[in-house]
Amino acid sequence: MTGTTHGRTGGPLDAFDLGELRARHSSKWREYPQDVLPVWVAEMDTPLAEPIAAALVEAVGRGDTGYAVAGGLPDAFAAFAARRFGWRTDPAAIRLVPDVMAGIVEVLSLVTEPGDRVVVNTPAYPPYFYWIPRIGRELVENPLLLTPGGHRLDLAALERDFAAGAAAFLLCNPHNPTGVVFGEEDLLAVAALAGRYGVRVVTDEIHAPLVFPGARHVPFAGLDAPAAARSITLASASKAWNLAGLKAALAVPGEEARADVARIHPEVSEGAGLLGVIASEVAFTSGEPWLEELLAGLDANRALLGRLLAGRLPEVGYQPPQATYLAWLDLRALGLGDDPAEWFLRRGGTALYPGPRFGAPGRGFARFNFATSGDRVTEAVERMAASLTGGPRAAASH
Amino acid sequence: MTGTTHGRTGGPLDAFDLGELRARHSSKWREYPQDVLPVWVAEMDTPLAEPIAAALVEAVGRGDTGYAVAGGLPDAFAAFAARRFGWRTDPAAIRLVPDVMAGIVEVLSLVTEPGDRVVVNTPAYPPYFYWIPRIGRELVENPLLLTPGGHRLDLAALERDFAAGAAAFLLCNPHNPTGVVFGEEDLLAVAALAGRYGVRVVTDEIHAPLVFPGARHVPFAGLDAPAAARSITLASASKAWNLAGLKAALAVPGEEARADVARIHPEVSEGAGLLGVIASEVAFTSGEPWLEELLAGLDANRALLGRLLAGRLPEVGYQPPQATYLAWLDLRALGLGDDPAEWFLRRGGTALYPGPRFGAPGRGFARFNFATSGDRVTEAVERMAASLTGGPRAAASH
Ligand SMILES: Cc1ncc(COP(=O)(O)O)c(C=O)c1O
Ligand SMILES: Cc1ncc(COP(=O)(O)O)c(C=O)c1O
Repeated sequence: MTGTTHGRTGGPLDAFDLGELRARHSSKWREYPQDVLPVWVAEMDTPLAEPIAAALVEAVGRGDTGYAVAGGLPDAFAAFAARRFGWRTDPAAIRLVPDVMAGIVEVLSLVTEPGDRVVVNTPAYPPYFYWIPRIGRELVENPLLLTPGGHRLDLAALERDFAAGAAAFLLCNPHNPTGVVFGEEDLLAVAALAGRYGVRVVTDEIHAPLVFPGARHVPFAGLDAPAAARSITLASASKAWNLAGLKAALAVPGEEARADVARIHPEVSEGAGLLGVIASEVAFTSGEPWLEELLAGLDANRALLGRLLAGRLPEVGYQPPQATYLAWLDLRALGLGDDPAEWFLRRGGTALYPGPRFGAPGRGFARFNFATSGDRVTEAVERMAASLTGGPRAAASH
Repeated sequence: MTGTTHGRTGGPLDAFDLGELRARHSSKWREYPQDVLPVWVAEMDTPLAEPIAAALVEAVGRGDTGYAVAGGLPDAFAAFAARRFGWRTDPAAIRLVPDVMAGIVEVLSLVTEPGDRVVVNTPAYPPYFYWIPRIGRELVENPLLLTPGGHRLDLAALERDFAAGAAAFLLCNPHNPTGVVFGEEDLLAVAALAGRYGVRVVTDEIHAPLVFPGARHVPFAGLDAPAAARSITLASASKAWNLAGLKAALAVPGEEARADVARIHPEVSEGAGLLGVIASEVAFTSGEPWLEELLAGLDANRALLGRLLAGRLPEVGYQPPQATYLAWLDLRALGLGDDPAEWFLRRGGTALYPGPRFGAPGRGFARFNFATSGDRVTEAVERMAASLTGGPRAAASH
């Protein structure tokens, strides 16, 4: 480690040292050898929020490890959504699903037919590319526009894809990996297009609690538009409170989509994890103080990453995300080819998430997860910079 | 409660009182109102085995709640299977799946085609009836024979179903709900038929650790037969150690089925729960002392249930199960119609699992879960008996 001077807040991001993290069983810490610093998969290096940890320990003590039912989770989510986003939704219409990806699969299976086209903005969360074809739907890549001010929706291209015959639009907002939070005007434009072309909107809002000051999350289903009423939102506490391994998410219908969501079979909900339900209910009910502390630390890290890149890797394109703890790095100027993450893994001992797995626009990019201590963010950038010294940039400058 | 005299062993089944159990969030305790005594879904009223609870508390403390990877679980299972069943299997070929049902869905999707027939012995675990058609396969009910000595395979009928064109046989052994443990001779006969007719055997052995003295679990994949080598086993610690809500199971290929199991995509394994992986590894590694204590208590309860039924409900047909904590009650002589569980729920304040959900042979039957204290087993039978006093038997004796 490079010392303790960078971005140390005393908050949840600084709680664990590397030895403690390497003792974890999770994907982030088990996928690569011990000498690799992992900044890839979307897990955080934080302890659990205190009330969540307490509820889990209590459940373990009670042997409360049988099959999941939604219990108080829909109510807890609806109250959270009303408080935080001003979005009113009926908890009785919400259904439990095992995780957001499984919920997307389920909802797309219900509202589209085999062979139907599903439009997805790229770069996109990699598992979409596996699961959409897996259920016999065709994934249509709709690239975001990369402008000097950051990524944005290409509404003209979206209209072309809708007009060409799309059954659904899988919107990801806030957007992984770019960290863009789509504004109300853009979302209304999407709703108008979806209404015009009869496209169902399924919206993955897993990152909604993770919005930084300066941006505001607008739930698509809360818009005043017919396509919003017909939309279905996937929500979860799993990213903001680091509960991905506990398996619980929610399918939340707009007013006119209740009948569709009601068709989610109880056997599907039974795939959820009981500890996920318990933890998520506590997160939505009493997890906001911890979330604010987390967001302060993440906000400091997104600034720190900008300073570090400007100083050590000035060729790297970096737009500080408006939400999420993910940075989508444009590494094309380094001349490392389509998959710069491969270089940094082999030569820099740092595991980023390879850009090409996010679709065609991911070539030359990689995703950097800064939900860790400032020291480790610094160490990762130092490792990346060191791997380039005296060779790669030269070697690759053809 | 009716006192403390029935079958109290001081073991895990007696650890919690009703108030503690009613504080649980799980399906068993949340599905019905407080005045209903639940003996339906396959959850146990036990605390967790001590080493499992300790590992979970440690994981919670470490914030080890990110994405699951199989880690040491396949090795732990392979060692357990060798020790307990004399079954040698290669841990490197084992794949993590979210739960047994999801594993069956995945494996059937890989080894059969849409429209293919999948033979299932009935009565059968109810979710089979949802998921097999859900993936576009046809479920063919192959009823077990009900003989005076208990349920057994109908090998002639199985041959007819195989010969008529079946792609797969989903064997459940030990069998839910009958508690039958199929013997080696029967299993060899199944393997011979499967070999002859080119039927793939997928075997659900979730209850394998829960075999009582007097019976012996024979893993199908361990048989010396080509169909065994081509079989795929689904295994899990979730029933024996009560971890269903933590979401982890394993797909274990026979020698000739490795390539099929290797096609289980990492995205599928990612649906598993990390705490399920952690808990299951500990269960298979150090959970046997607790399991023996549990089995002693369950063995006492299966005898207790027999005595109680003989005394209070002598018309009920009951074959003590050779494995599982499930009793498959033949209630036809009570004249309560196809779904006697409905009667006992409305009139007896006792929730059994309705027989008809297990397929056609379930009419007039119900499943009783005796993984609870002897007192509560007694209370449930008392409630059932009381609900019949002075009316139903008469009323129904048309
Ligand atoms: C946009 C997006 N959707 C879905 C997921 C996966 O969520 P889950 O683990 O609940 O399937 C992630 C995880 O990072 C994500 O970023
Ligand atoms: C025979 C059988 N298979 C599968 C399951 C479900 O297992 P899981 O919860 O791992 O899907 C059960 C649960 O009781 C069962 O009895």
